[in-house]
Amino acid sequence: MQPLDSTATQLRVNTLRLRADFEQLSKIGAHTTHNSTPPAINRLALSPEDLRARAWFAERVEEAGILVRDDDAGNLSGFLPSEKKGAQTLLVGSHLDSIPDGGRYIGTVGVLAALECARTIHEAAVKLPFDLEVMDFTDGEGCWQSLFGALGVAGLLQPIHINDVHNDNAPFRAALVRAGINPNDVYNSKRHPSTLLGYLELHIEQSYRLEQSGVSIGIVEAIVGRSTYHVNFFGQAAHAGTTNMSLGARKDALQGASAFITRAHEFVRANYDEGTLNFGDITVQPGKFNMIPARCKLTMECRHTSEDMLAEMEAAILALGQECAEIFDLTMQPTRLIHMPAAVMAQPFVEAAERACEIVGVSHMRLSSFAGHEAQIMSTITPCGMIFIPSVGGISHNPQEFSRWEDVIDGANTLLHTILALAE
Amino acid sequence: MQPLDSTATQLRVNTLRLRADFEQLSKIGAHTTHNSTPPAINRLALSPEDLRARAWFAERVEEAGILVRDDDAGNLSGFLPSEKKGAQTLLVGSHLDSIPDGGRYIGTVGVLAALECARTIHEAAVKLPFDLEVMDFTDGEGCWQSLFGALGVAGLLQPIHINDVHNDNAPFRAALVRAGINPNDVYNSKRHPSTLLGYLELHIEQSYRLEQSGVSIGIVEAIVGRSTYHVNFFGQAAHAGTTNMSLGARKDALQGASAFITRAHEFVRANYDEGTLNFGDITVQPGKFNMIPARCKLTMECRHTSEDMLAEMEAAILALGQECAEIFDLTMQPTRLIHMPAAVMAQPFVEAAERACEIVGVSHMRLSSFAGHEAQIMSTITPCGMIFIPSVGGISHNPQEFSRWEDVIDGANTLLHTILALAE
Repeated sequence: MQPLDSTATQLRVNTLRLRADFEQLSKIGAHTTHNSTPPAINRLALSPEDLRARAWFAERVEEAGILVRDDDAGNLSGFLPSEKKGAQTLLVGSHLDSIPDGGRYIGTVGVLAALECARTIHEAAVKLPFDLEVMDFTDGEGCWQSLFGALGVAGLLQPIHINDVHNDNAPFRAALVRAGINPNDVYNSKRHPSTLLGYLELHIEQSYRLEQSGVSIGIVEAIVGRSTYHVNFFGQAAHAGTTNMSLGARKDALQGASAFITRAHEFVRANYDEGTLNFGDITVQPGKFNMIPARCKLTMECRHTSEDMLAEMEAAILALGQECAEIFDLTMQPTRLIHMPAAVMAQPFVEAAERACEIVGVSHMRLSSFAGHEAQIMSTITPCGMIFIPSVGGISHNPQEFSRWEDVIDGANTLLHTILALAE
Repeated sequence: MQPLDSTATQLRVNTLRLRADFEQLSKIGAHTTHNSTPPAINRLALSPEDLRARAWFAERVEEAGILVRDDDAGNLSGFLPSEKKGAQTLLVGSHLDSIPDGGRYIGTVGVLAALECARTIHEAAVKLPFDLEVMDFTDGEGCWQSLFGALGVAGLLQPIHINDVHNDNAPFRAALVRAGINPNDVYNSKRHPSTLLGYLELHIEQSYRLEQSGVSIGIVEAIVGRSTYHVNFFGQAAHAGTTNMSLGARKDALQGASAFITRAHEFVRANYDEGTLNFGDITVQPGKFNMIPARCKLTMECRHTSEDMLAEMEAAILALGQECAEIFDLTMQPTRLIHMPAAVMAQPFVEAAERACEIVGVSHMRLSSFAGHEAQIMSTITPCGMIFIPSVGGISHNPQEFSRWEDVIDGANTLLHTILALAE
């Protein structure tokens, strides 16, 4: 193994090659709707467009002289082995699949920058003390099963993930088979933690803290935990005209739910700087003009960067709901549907990224991620780090999603030097 | 014409005959579901069950020696002519049709009591200075077009009532034809106001003010006006995790709508004793767990017994909605869908009903009706009066709808003596 010398600090990615890759990839699954400029990206996981993107990626890996690999969960990678015997592997990447009508940057920037880093390191003949593996994870956007590939690598895939989504996941299994993935073998994608050095990802911020702060690079300290609920309020249907308006006379499920929505938002705004709350949907029954709502069903989502604070926040919100139910003579029934634990990024990865920013010469700040990422899953088995570049206007999951090219370059070089810093 | 003598004050309806009618009619369209006792009534307007009820009613009229009539809007009646030349007509009645899975009392009590009054007057050979006409109005419950028959008599039917409900009213026109009604002729059901003395109706209260006051008879002073709206709040969809929670950062249509629902209810409770408000339905878009609602659509219904106060209340509520929209950086768009004006009952009818209660010897109180009725339509062309009997528990539009039989009898006798009082 050859130690990194001072010339390594001069190393930079090939910006023209990275740009060419980005332009080519942006054409796969692009389509123009409603005079939209730029076009919307449709590379839904395992769709023909996603498979075309994967084939294109495999070609890029191969032509760079890097080994193409895949695993039994469909994760596709470029593997650059270390000369060191028994070396661990540093995974670097993201996902190439998109949401319906998505943008060009999310996921792709992470995969392409990781590929460009591997090519740059390979060309410069830098000897790393670990294997470097550029990852395109399967279904990062959750078209079928959110973070499916990462769940596989982390050994967290369960039969329910391919058998029980929406009570019948046959279309997902069919899509896996069409993509050459045997649904019975997906569990084999598990990696043993001892084989891994860690996981590193470059991603767009999807928010506007970097933009508002005028800072180029965000270094993630934590990824929010997320819990989703259905919260039902049960009252009693009655004639909206003949029933007295007084609080005691009406058991109006919608009045209770409305008070809850207002108070819960006020509570989170006042008490949880690192928490978010959303009521994304609401329905009432019987849903008639002249009937007092007997039932109101809310979908609720809570996020917090600290697992303990998230649990505390959820409990306090539900207690508020109970109070609102009592005021309006209702019963409340919350059901927790999903819980994705908050993840803390590894301190050595945070510090490596900060050193990388100093070497590249870009401003940086630590922040939290309020969106979920592969690193959230990977952090259950190996140290993780994430690097954010600014999203203009904070827009993502939208064809208007945009990051300045200078920021993409800065992000790629920061990723490169984070890898090199981890090698020291 | 023979003036009413003192023996007329002794006159009472035949309770056994009225009861027998009620029991027979309650079997038409009755069906038992979920072990329900009593059974639910399904006599939807113009349905085979409704037509059977109408045939049964025509037989009762005929066997009483009273003239069976109908008009071009399908209103069915029993006509007892006065001996007085050029006499006006006093209409008395309600409707025999029901909502889906309705109760046994609503509408039917009014028609059967009116029939019994006519029979009693006919048998006692009381000479009235007006024609007495027992009405079964078409579609009192609005299965097809709310208060269709009354709209016809009042000359308020418009082509839109049979051509444009839900954008295609062909099924209604077909139902009219099946019932022997020519859709082109329904406008002929109009009566000239000069031919009418007024309209009188006995009805269940559908509320619990009589029950709570321990009073037998309610004498209606006013029927609420009613306006319905769609109120839309428009904000902006955004990622629920990455968008800042602060008020300025989110344009959450559901937060605005929730604040509006809460504040509008508080406002009406505090300021409008005779007003009611209901938000009967709510939907949001896009309706996803992790998306901030971009749009929230409310259905809103306002009622007040005073037309002026209703207008004032509606304007104030919409102003509150505008305030809530501004707080959450939204735009609000209200659309008024229906306006049914408030109706004031005729003072001579109110006083006649009060005299009748004194003669019958039942307690009484004046009150407002918070539900719509035929009298609301009829009052646009002729003086109207309404008499309420208690609804146990205030329940209506439900198989559990119930009024004590003593109260039905008291109501029928009060109706009888109101007719007689109007004759004086």
